[in-house]
Parts: sequence; C-alpha cells; structure tokens
Amino acid sequence: MKPFIHENFLLPGAVAQKLFHEHAARMPIIDYHCHLDPKEIYLDRRFANLSEVWLAGDHYKWRLMRANGVTEDFITGNRSDYEKFEKWAETVEILLGNPLYHWTHFELKRFFGVDDLLSPKTACKIWDTVNAQLPTMTARRLIQASNVETICTTDDPIDSLEWHEKLAADPSFSVKVLPAFRPDKAVNIELGWFRGWIQKLSAAAGFSIENLAALKTALVSRIEFFHAHGCRLSDHALDILAFEAAGEEEVDGIFQKAMRQDSLSETEIRKYKGFMMVFFGREYAKKGWIQQYHIGAFRNVSGRMFQQLGPDTGYDAINDGFVAQPLRHLLDALDRTGELPKTILYTLNPRDFEVGVTLMQSFQGGGIPGKLQFGAPWWFLDTIDGMEKQIKALGSNGLLARFVGMLTDSRSFLSYPRHEYFRRILCREIGRQVEEGLFPEDYPLLGRIVEDIAYGNAKRYFSF
Amino acid sequence: MKPFIHENFLLPGAVAQKLFHEHAARMPIIDYHCHLDPKEIYLDRRFANLSEVWLAGDHYKWRLMRANGVTEDFITGNRSDYEKFEKWAETVEILLGNPLYHWTHFELKRFFGVDDLLSPKTACKIWDTVNAQLPTMTARRLIQASNVETICTTDDPIDSLEWHEKLAADPSFSVKVLPAFRPDKAVNIELGWFRGWIQKLSAAAGFSIENLAALKTALVSRIEFFHAHGCRLSDHALDILAFEAAGEEEVDGIFQKAMRQDSLSETEIRKYKGFMMVFFGREYAKKGWIQQYHIGAFRNVSGRMFQQLGPDTGYDAINDGFVAQPLRHLLDALDRTGELPKTILYTLNPRDFEVGVTLMQSFQGGGIPGKLQFGAPWWFLDTIDGMEKQIKALGSNGLLARFVGMLTDSRSFLSYPRHEYFRRILCREIGRQVEEGLFPEDYPLLGRIVEDIAYGNAKRYFSF
Amino acid sequence: MKPFIHENFLLPGAVAQKLFHEHAARMPIIDYHCHLDPKEIYLDRRFANLSEVWLAGDHYKWRLMRANGVTEDFITGNRSDYEKFEKWAETVEILLGNPLYHWTHFELKRFFGVDDLLSPKTACKIWDTVNAQLPTMTARRLIQASNVETICTTDDPIDSLEWHEKLAADPSFSVKVLPAFRPDKAVNIELGWFRGWIQKLSAAAGFSIENLAALKTALVSRIEFFHAHGCRLSDHALDILAFEAAGEEEVDGIFQKAMRQDSLSETEIRKYKGFMMVFFGREYAKKGWIQQYHIGAFRNVSGRMFQQLGPDTGYDAINDGFVAQPLRHLLDALDRTGELPKTILYTLNPRDFEVGVTLMQSFQGGGIPGKLQFGAPWWFLDTIDGMEKQIKALGSNGLLARFVGMLTDSRSFLSYPRHEYFRRILCREIGRQVEEGLFPEDYPLLGRIVEDIAYGNAKRYFSF
Repeated sequence: MKPFIHENFLLPGAVAQKLFHEHAARMPIIDYHCHLDPKEIYLDRRFANLSEVWLAGDHYKWRLMRANGVTEDFITGNRSDYEKFEKWAETVEILLGNPLYHWTHFELKRFFGVDDLLSPKTACKIWDTVNAQLPTMTARRLIQASNVETICTTDDPIDSLEWHEKLAADPSFSVKVLPAFRPDKAVNIELGWFRGWIQKLSAAAGFSIENLAALKTALVSRIEFFHAHGCRLSDHALDILAFEAAGEEEVDGIFQKAMRQDSLSETEIRKYKGFMMVFFGREYAKKGWIQQYHIGAFRNVSGRMFQQLGPDTGYDAINDGFVAQPLRHLLDALDRTGELPKTILYTLNPRDFEVGVTLMQSFQGGGIPGKLQFGAPWWFLDTIDGMEKQIKALGSNGLLARFVGMLTDSRSFLSYPRHEYFRRILCREIGRQVEEGLFPEDYPLLGRIVEDIAYGNAKRYFSF
Repeated sequence: MKPFIHENFLLPGAVAQKLFHEHAARMPIIDYHCHLDPKEIYLDRRFANLSEVWLAGDHYKWRLMRANGVTEDFITGNRSDYEKFEKWAETVEILLGNPLYHWTHFELKRFFGVDDLLSPKTACKIWDTVNAQLPTMTARRLIQASNVETICTTDDPIDSLEWHEKLAADPSFSVKVLPAFRPDKAVNIELGWFRGWIQKLSAAAGFSIENLAALKTALVSRIEFFHAHGCRLSDHALDILAFEAAGEEEVDGIFQKAMRQDSLSETEIRKYKGFMMVFFGREYAKKGWIQQYHIGAFRNVSGRMFQQLGPDTGYDAINDGFVAQPLRHLLDALDRTGELPKTILYTLNPRDFEVGVTLMQSFQGGGIPGKLQFGAPWWFLDTIDGMEKQIKALGSNGLLARFVGMLTDSRSFLSYPRHEYFRRILCREIGRQVEEGLFPEDYPLLGRIVEDIAYGNAKRYFSF
Repeated sequence: MKPFIHENFLLPGAVAQKLFHEHAARMPIIDYHCHLDPKEIYLDRRFANLSEVWLAGDHYKWRLMRANGVTEDFITGNRSDYEKFEKWAETVEILLGNPLYHWTHFELKRFFGVDDLLSPKTACKIWDTVNAQLPTMTARRLIQASNVETICTTDDPIDSLEWHEKLAADPSFSVKVLPAFRPDKAVNIELGWFRGWIQKLSAAAGFSIENLAALKTALVSRIEFFHAHGCRLSDHALDILAFEAAGEEEVDGIFQKAMRQDSLSETEIRKYKGFMMVFFGREYAKKGWIQQYHIGAFRNVSGRMFQQLGPDTGYDAINDGFVAQPLRHLLDALDRTGELPKTILYTLNPRDFEVGVTLMQSFQGGGIPGKLQFGAPWWFLDTIDGMEKQIKALGSNGLLARFVGMLTDSRSFLSYPRHEYFRRILCREIGRQVEEGLFPEDYPLLGRIVEDIAYGNAKRYFSF
C-alpha cells in the first residue's frame, strides 16, 4: 500500500512532480525566521522521548487538544509524557483538513521513517520506534538532515549573543546560525515590562538611559553589536499598526513620562511607536538590513489562561484592525527620505493580503528586485489554503518569481518539513497554471523560478 | 435523461458518494435553529397552493424577483397567487450560480417528486402537480418526511410557550419541538420598542420592573420557565458587537434612563449591552445551556421599504464592523470567572471567518469537545462557496470533526433539504481531500466523522 | 506547436468552448467605462513604436518593472524606447500568475498576429514585427478591429466636449464615442485644486459661483450640456466613503468656507461630500442616467514619487475602510424619496464583495431588471481570481444573468482583449457549473445568458 506521505504527496500532475523533484527538492533551506534556541543548537540538545520533542512547548498542538476535549492535566499539567502523547494521538486521528495532520506525518516520516498514521491504535508502536532513534537525533542532527544552510534565530536586543558566538567559533557545525534583532520591547511602551526592559538595555549598553537620545544611542549600539555577529534581519510584531507623526522633542517627553510610570494616552502611544518604527527603519537602512513586519496578531485573548500559563500557550487569534492607512504612513515616512530598507510584510488576517500586496508594490523601486516582499503565510495561515491564497495574491498583483519564500517561524527542531510542504504546494500551484495553459511549459524557465523561490531569491536578498 | 437532482448531485467522486449514501444520508436531522411557528406545527397547517407555501413569506425569493425587474404587486402586492408564482418561475429559470436554484429543485423533487425544471414553460404543470399533493403534505407530514428528530424554534422570552406545551403533550407527533430563548429585545435598549417590551416582560414575570435588579430577576424567571419546557439553547442577534465594561450600579442608571425615555449615548448603549450579554451568558452557564451569537447582519437598510413593508422583507445586508476586539471582550468577561457556556459563533461576513475560528479556539477547554463552535454558514452564506469556505476555515484552524453541523434557520416547512445540500457539500469536500491524498481513505474513520458532523456531534453537544 | 493564445485558451471543457465560440465571441463590445482620449480617436492617432503604444503611460507595467529591479531611467526616464521595451520583455518573461502575462500576449496576437512569447530572446523580433504594422494600426483601426460598438470616455464637467462633437459629426467612423460625467473635483473639497477648479467651472457655466446654489446651477447646466452630447453615465471615485447628513444652509456655509480657503474639519468634509453625492444622484435620476461608484482606491501612497512623477504613475493601492454604513446612508438618502438612479457599485477591496452585493440587492426594485449592479472587478482585481470571485459573489447573492458585464477602464487602445479575457473566464465558470451538474446543459438558455452578460444587458441597461 502506498504510504500516506509518498513521493508525490500534494503533486497531482507531471509538471508539479518534475518541478518539485528536479528543482525544489534539491535546494538547501535558508530558514530566515525561526524561534530556535541557539543554546540548544550549540549544546546539541537531546530529547528523552517524543512528547518532549513534540508536545513540551507546541501551543499549536495544545490548542487542538483542548478543542478535542482533552483536559489541561494532559496538556500543560503533570500527566506522564506517554499519557500526553496518547491524547495527542487521539486528536491527530480526526484532524481532517488541518495542516498539523500533514506536519505530524511529515515529521514522523522524514526524521524517523515512520509510515504508520498516528492514532490511538498506533500510538504505542510509534512511541517506541521514535524514542529508539531519539538518542542519535539531536538538535544538530535534525538540522543537518534537513539540508539547512542558514538559520536566523529571533533575539532580544539585550541578548549577549553568547551562543551565537560559540556557534560561529565551532568548526564542527557547518550550518550558519545568525541572530535576528527583535526590539518589540523597545516599541511597546504601553506594556508593564517596558521600564524594566529599558533598565536591562541600559545595562547591556553600559550607560544610563534617561531620555530618548540615550535610548536611541543604546539601540544603535546594540544594532552594531548584532551586525558584528552577522545579524542582517530585524523583526517587529506589529499586533496593532499605530502611527502618528510627532517630533523628537515631543516623543522624548512621552518616553520620559513612561519612565516615570505616568499613564500615556492612546495618541501618545501611537506617536511613540510611530517614531520608534521610523527610527529603527532608518538604522536598518544604514546597515543594509532587512526588516520584517508581522502584522495583525491578537495575543493572549484569554485573560484567565494568560494568568495561569503565560504567553505563547495557545490563546492567540487573528485581529481585524485597519492596515492600509497606518502601514502606508510608516512606509512612506521611511521612503520620503530614501531611507526605506528592504522590508518583508506579513499580515495574519488573510483579508488583508490584497491591501498588503498592493501597498508593498507602491514602494518598490531603487533597482532592487523584490525590494519589498509580501511574506509567506504565517501562523494560522500556514496551511494549504493560506499558501495558495498568498501565492495567488502575490502573483496577481506582484512578482511571484521574486518571492523570497518560506520560513519555519518555529520553536521546534522538527519543523523543517514545512519548507517541503510549502515547496510542494508551490509546485502544485505552478503545475496547475501550466496545465491549464496559463503559463508556458518551459522547464528551464520554470525550474529557475522554482529554485529561486525555494532558495536563490533568499540567498541574493539577504546576502548571507 | 438523468434528472437535475439525481442520486449523486454534488457528489463527483466515489469517496463522496460512499460517504454520503452510506453515512450522511442515513442520519436523522437535528434542526437546532429555525424560525418555524410551533402553533402551525401543532395545528398541522395546510397550504392552499405552492405560492402560499413558497412565496408568502420568503424574502430570499422576493429579493431575487425584485432584482429581476418584477414589480412589487407580484411580490408583496395583490396579484393572484398564480401570477406571483409565474414571476418566480421566470426568475428561477435564470438563477445561474444561486443556491435558490438548487433549493427550489430539491424541494420540488423531495416533497413532490417533480423532476421538471421550473421555468415559464413548466410553471403551469408544476403548479398543478404540487397543488394536487398539498392537501396531504401538511406541516407535520413535511417534517416527518424529512426524518427530523428535533426542532428548536426561536422564541421571545415573554412567549407563553403554549404551543410547545401542547406539542409536548401530543403523543401523535414524535418529533421533539423545543423552544429556544431569543432575548434580543432585552438587549437592544436603543430601539423604539424597548420600553414597551419591558412592560410585556413585566406582565409575563408577574411583577413590575423598575430597575436592573428586577429586570434580571424577571429574565431569570423566564429562563427557568423555558428550561422547564425543554429549552437548552439561546440565540442572540449581535448585528453590531458592542462591549464596554461597566459596573452594575452604572448600568442600573442607564436602564432607568432608558425607561424614562431619556436618550442614551453610544457609550451607555455599549455598556448596557455588554453587561446584559455577560449576565445572560452566566445564566446560561448555570443552566448548562448553549448560547448562539449571530454576528454582523445589517438589517432594514432601505428606510423606504422598511416603512412600507416592515422587517424581514428582503432589505437586509452584510455589515463590516470590527469583530475581534469586542467579541474577545465578551467571551473573556465570561471566561475569566469560569462562566462561559458552550457557545456557537456565526459571522455573516465571510471575511470574519478566520477571526471567528481563531478567537473561538482561544476559548476552548474544560474537557468539553468542541465547547465553542464556529457555526454553519448563515443566510447570505448558505451557499456552496460559503459552506466550502466555512469547512476549510474550520478545518484549517479548528476541529472540523467536532462540528455540530447544519441548521435550516428557516421559516419554511420545505427547507429541510438544506441539510441534505450541506451534507452533500461536506461529503464532496471530504471526498476531494481524500482523493487528493490529504487524508487517508479509511472508511470506518471517515464514516464516523461524517455521521458525527451530520448528527452525532449535535446529539451529544445539545444533550436533547 | 499549439500557440500560447490558442482558440480554447482558458476554456477547459466542451460547454465553455461552445458558449464562448458560439455566443460570447460573436457579441460586439460596449465599453461603457474607459479613459481613452476622444481627441486621439478623432485625430486617429498613430504610434511610432511598440514602446509608445505600450509603455508610455501604462502604470500597471511600470509598477511590475520596478518590482523586478528595473531602475526609473528605463521606466519614466530618458532611456531609448527600445531599451525600455527590453526591460519590459525581461519582466514579462517571469510574470507567472499575473494577468499582464495574458494581456501582453493577447494584445500581440490579436492586433499583430504574434505567437512568440515575449522575453529577452524574442524582444528584438517582436519589436520589428509590431513596429512594421503600427503605421496602419491607428487608434480607429484598433477600435474597429475589436468589434467595438460604443465607447464611453471619462470627462471633466468643465470639458468642452469639442472632440466628442467632432466625432459625432464624422460619418467615416461608425463607433459611438460618448462622454461620461466625472465630477470628482466638485466633490473633493479637501484637495488643493478645489478652488481653482470651481473657477474653471464658473468659466464653463458662464457665471460666477459664490455659493452652493450657484454651484448646483452650474453643475446642472453641465449635466444638461453632457446630456445633449449623448452622455448617459456618470462616474465617481469614492476613495473613502464619507456621508454625514446635513442641511443645505449648513453645506452652503462649508462651501463658502472652502472658497475662502479656511480649513475644514473632517465632519464638514463628510457633510459636504454626502450632500453633493445626493445632489448628483438626484440629478442623474431626473435625466435617466446611470451612476457609477468606484469605491476603495488608495491613491498616491508614495509621497516621494507623487512629488516626482505626479498621479497615475503606479503608486496606488487598495484601501480598507468601512463600506457598509456610509454606502447604505448614501443609497438610502437617494432611495427614500424615490430618486435613486440606476447605480453600478465597484469595490476595489475584494473583501467588500459580499457587503457590496448584499447591499446592492437591498435597493433593487421599481420593475427595472438589475437596476443596481455590482460591477466587474476593477484595476487590481482585473485578474482571473478577481473575476471568478466577482462572478461567484454576484451569482450567490444576486442575479448574475442580469449583469451588465465588462469594461476596459483603460487608457490604451490595445486593451480590448480584456473583454475577451473576461468572456472566456465567464464561459469557463459557467461551463464548470454545468459540468458539475449545478445548472442544466440547456444551450438556448445558457447562450442567451452569456450573450446578455457579454452585450445584451448593457445594451438594454444603458439604452445607447
């Protein structure tokens, strides 16, 4: 019987198959945005069992288990690892239409050679089969088995980058592991931890931060530090897009107000955030960095569970704020003075794709192919439908052939098959267009486009 | 020649056909949300002719006739029933791409054995064929012929439930007909009839309602009364989602202001509504009821025709307000104290599906499978595309296999084939996924999932 | 080898092929909304080379070239026409998924018999082939070769309509070229050129415009003038929908304030705009005109490039404002008094399609088939996906069979194949529905519907 994850999974026609096997599948992976821990890579983390590697921190899975009626003791509680795994197996069995059905079986197949479908009946056998292999399937081994060339982690500006340094100095591991700069805590002035974080930044920078000028100097010094460690990307979580023009003096006042713990108005928050986003963009432009905007997440919507479990535990959603006006203001503020860096936009609400793509196209220029990018579908959209919608929206109003492609955005060492999943869907969609006669069956051209989206565009765009 | 509504209508492949005929088609119907009149069921209403049963109150049809250039005298005016029917026949003939083309022919086929397609040419013959059968096709007969097990009507809290009582006491009719609690008039404080309705509630409760405490006591007594009559569901039409936190004392002041007919500010309206929604949710939680939120209708948009014909006459549309923030506030306010009942969310704007599904998933828990549901596509979305979009959105980010499935939401005794229509579309979509290799061709598993969505999930979820 | 643009391009099945070749393809074109210059038609403009006809003013192409890394000197700068063409050829080659790939090859094939696919390799040969034919392919010849019956240009109320007059008097050109009335400059009170434009209107009307009454009189006289020149359509670019009720006296004050160059509040702007839109609608109703609302463009988003190149240079996007409430207010204000003219709604954001269609349906009536229309997908949505989405949204909740169909909305004499593109997509979608058994394979009926959407509905609706 044909295994579920077979050679031509998701590849219905000859064109898609040829493009995938002869082109996409051969490309290395540049995973330019993920949440792996560089320490675990350096120390080559080992995993005790399949629950530890799969269920310990994966809020995608937790969320589905909860919807399936699994109680919290089997999810984040103190049930045994095997009991938790059994509950996941029960849930997977009925995951009709969900990408985690495919991710699960890709991961079992690619890393552990498992062809059985996970269900209560097979749980025990799969548990044993995988656990037997886990001692040799370490963090580094999982990465190397996936043909990964470069990884960009996601790092706080105050991070010492100690583990990145060690990794860079380790000749035994050939995969590039670079930091990426994520200064959300410098932007989110309204959150409780803002003041505390500024104090930590002060410590990292080596001087006291009493005003906006000092804050900027400290952040520039951290950008320099990250740059010296190979960082070329930043990332901003713009859960709500906020922009309101304001001068430096006014923003200095807002910053000092926040540091005195005076409460800020909505307008003051928007002014501070807009100012800082422009400040960051300009600094990235100077350095030749690429900035990423992740727009539209709605985090920690269950107050009760946030108090109980903290963030990133499966209680997030998609928001529905306005995108066009504030995003335009932000990009335009950078572009007006010729200081708009290369930028990747990601919108979490699929209804914003057309706004995002057409706005992005309005800031292309300067002789850089695909200077602005409309990024791969993210989080809740990392699905077959999400990817098809993104590929079509980008193709219809932009240059799909210049797209820098997929990323894992994951905390797990097992997530690399998401690149394969994306590449299969990409080849499927291109194959469909060719078979419908919408694009010529010109394999040298198609092969080049597929290889570029899978690898070449990212390689050139990020200049790693 | 193969009839238009044939055995495998909407079922293109072997998987879909097997799942539909061997599983979906065999399940009874739990129609947990409709607008049938219990009095008409009890009295076993008879219909004089096809116009009376089809056109007398169906604003879906009226709207399409108007768009086809039919004048109002043939719609709501005093033309003869047959003349009206002829105009509908003219309209149906060209209804390419519209679900009413399918509903019409399903209803003709299933209840009256008619295979002819309705058009000006066939109108007279169909009129005679159906009318000849109508004397025996009474309300009860139509329900029983559709294999309906349970019906939930939609009832005002002040309703005496007289007809539900009579139905419950009638051993000759085996279908359960239960009330559902729809207290919109207690929530919509801004509408002209609010004060008058409170007076009627006062009469139903048997005491005078001078303040918020009395209002709450009266409503609780009506909930008890409905519960005693088998009610387990409530329904709220949240045309605009409004939520603003406020204390009991403040809301009491707002209520009393409204009762004095002082005008209320937008903020006051939001505070009152948010407070009442939380109040209702907590009461439902105590009773183990299920609440339904119907979000995003834009009613009576033509002021001229509202004055002329009143509500529910075909002048409604889809609204485009924000959903994420207010809906989160409402669900979170209930969840914080552990008082969030089982809830079914319906959004009328399809662009809100992803927000709705991901928000819903953020409140799952407590060991109840599918505690929160993202409901079947409703009204303007009760179409092939709408259902496919809902099935995919729910599958991609939730647990489709736990879905409680379809409802008619109809005022007509002929609407039961909408369940069949949904089940065929569901089997078609599942069949597609299986034939594309995205889910295993495991018939015991698939059959169970299909039977659950068609019937089993609702049976367990509502515990009728 | 089969050419790329072959007989059955976009027509996968027998039904689609039959409907296209025997019905759609035979219909003349009524291009009821475009941006052609009547002067160029009258003078029968000639083109020096393919760059002049294709690249001189086409911001769709410029935008894609910029995204492909082409520098501005090859786009709007002073590189030679051939150098610019070469850059376009480089960009076209990789336009996978973009409608301009199809438009380009349709235009080469239909007007110049070119079957080669444009790429750097073929650029030189195509350049020569097309240029050799251009001396005889004049403006009029291109129009006549496309079987165009009627053209509506887009004209400023102050226009003298000199060229329309000359065209009407020229018996050598049988195509009707009619003006359309586009009074955006009378509505957009907040823009810098408002006052200057009122002065020009004053000159055109022949009297001074000091107050609202005079403005209205002047505009009515221009409507009369346009009507006398065969105008039957107006067009409004409602980038942002603004409506707030206000009386004549108040709006007079706002107008006079603007004329004194006092700054206006957001509310005043909304009141003026809402008032004027109602004023225009009523005048159109009197004349039996059709009004068009183009909703949701976000223009000139790059401030830097707007300063450098002006409007319509490829820096526009899709906006995401609210549509339902303000559009309802506007339509309802006209409908309340029975003065709502025939209206075509176009929304640029595809997420507004369902709101637009259901709102439109709420104002149908008066015995006019398809009195309100949900217009063809426009600008960024003039794609296969955009058209399919529009056809499905309209079919699901409206009367597709009454749709007035396609328009070019173009500044180019080569754009007529967009009608063919639309007709093929329409036949493909109808063919799909028939082959899936969703509509009967009744060719007389289907042929009539297709001919109506391609031509007949527009012919009757506009009464040209």
